[in-house]
Amino acid sequence: MEPHGYPLLFSVFLFIFLATSPAASDLHNIPHQIHPLRPRSGAHGHEVPGLSCLSWRLGVETHNLIGWKTVPEQCEKYVGHYMLGRQYRDDSKAVVDEAWLYAQSLKLAGDGKEIWVFDVDETTLSNLPYYAKHGFGTKPYDPRMFSSWVMEQKAPALPESLKLYKKLLSLGLKVVFLTGRAEDQRNVTAANLNDVGFHTWEKLILKESYYSGKTAVAYKSSERKRLEENNGYRIIGNIGDQWSDIIGTNSGNRTFKLPDPLYYIS
Amino acid sequence: MEPHGYPLLFSVFLFIFLATSPAASDLHNIPHQIHPLRPRSGAHGHEVPGLSCLSWRLGVETHNLIGWKTVPEQCEKYVGHYMLGRQYRDDSKAVVDEAWLYAQSLKLAGDGKEIWVFDVDETTLSNLPYYAKHGFGTKPYDPRMFSSWVMEQKAPALPESLKLYKKLLSLGLKVVFLTGRAEDQRNVTAANLNDVGFHTWEKLILKESYYSGKTAVAYKSSERKRLEENNGYRIIGNIGDQWSDIIGTNSGNRTFKLPDPLYYIS
Repeated sequence: MEPHGYPLLFSVFLFIFLATSPAASDLHNIPHQIHPLRPRSGAHGHEVPGLSCLSWRLGVETHNLIGWKTVPEQCEKYVGHYMLGRQYRDDSKAVVDEAWLYAQSLKLAGDGKEIWVFDVDETTLSNLPYYAKHGFGTKPYDPRMFSSWVMEQKAPALPESLKLYKKLLSLGLKVVFLTGRAEDQRNVTAANLNDVGFHTWEKLILKESYYSGKTAVAYKSSERKRLEENNGYRIIGNIGDQWSDIIGTNSGNRTFKLPDPLYYIS
Repeated sequence: MEPHGYPLLFSVFLFIFLATSPAASDLHNIPHQIHPLRPRSGAHGHEVPGLSCLSWRLGVETHNLIGWKTVPEQCEKYVGHYMLGRQYRDDSKAVVDEAWLYAQSLKLAGDGKEIWVFDVDETTLSNLPYYAKHGFGTKPYDPRMFSSWVMEQKAPALPESLKLYKKLLSLGLKVVFLTGRAEDQRNVTAANLNDVGFHTWEKLILKESYYSGKTAVAYKSSERKRLEENNGYRIIGNIGDQWSDIIGTNSGNRTFKLPDPLYYIS
């Protein structure tokens, strides 16, 4: 068996799977909210055994791998395939379903002080159109280019998170957005959120310049502490794509980690 | 396309993959340390779309799913396949590789007070032979049957964890085993650990009866606190298969989560 047999067979399988499986019609029905590209068919080959990229992604999601700067070069296609395909959507749905089960189980006081904290990037707004053009996380973070993308105000909603947001509002919970985006991106962030369906919030907290040099864990913990201790809110739930969104102090009664194999923020 | 087309195609793919891919020889070389069964070929069919079981497992590993009692019935084959196959081993190896990278990066004081905490079940000793006979976690936990299995003293080592253990000892770190097994299983646990290659330890801490009714998080936090505050140890690293092994107080300078889709301990 020649070494290229695996990618070829994998492609054949994927082709058969996409073309004929009962799930194929569902797959083609994934709405285009996040990104218009279709999942790759694998026809370009899969240069590395996917298994190690699978373990890498699991390591990222379980917080075993920390402080990494870029997605390993050899996992670009794997990550791209994951992000554009069905699994990212299924994984996100599973998280949101659990969050909604939890929220429904609560006895809420309804005093207007019960909040749910949402992160923004890769939690409510998706930067997948940007990352799809920039190597799916394999290239070092470029603050200037990324900022240009943010200023375009074109980030789509993460469909599952938007559903959760609407359901939580219907329970009478207030939503607070807590993002690592800088204060000078307030207008574009608010407008982008509003454009894609997030029409109301209790607060939108962006990173003030005095947090410069602090980790996201320190910044977000500090802001959550302020919400609870100074403003009398109670954080009922907290959802983000980074572990730094959900660890630290005042992290909320329950936390939810959305998938994100594109980048790491400490 | 008839509804059973997916399992059939999946089986065909798996057969081709197992028989001919370049990885096949590696797959057949997985040593039998954990369990003598070979991964299932899928020939019995895969009753449910594997994708939702994938998302379920990711939810477990990321601690989004908590307090669950059994593996969903429809994921029995998926979990069995995962546990007996290559991916569990690859995922474990990725965790252990990262732990070893971390350990090597440390400047150790070498004062004999630097310890690494290992959990026992599904971290150093594998109960896979038991779970393979009992529905891969789909059946409710049966304390009497499980205890009989423990008393047989036949649990194999988790190969990757054994490698990590040996390497950590070579750095001069001391190992502490901290397990939810009860104090009255001390002899069999010590003997089993010793049988499979864990020949030395600083302490083997088992659950005293006064922790009865406490969560594993409370019990393990309390014992780790005692190690650090009363005994002057410093927990350099901490590895377990349950989130309750690595959250709580005195959890260690860095923690590592091994995969375990078989059961949940709070």
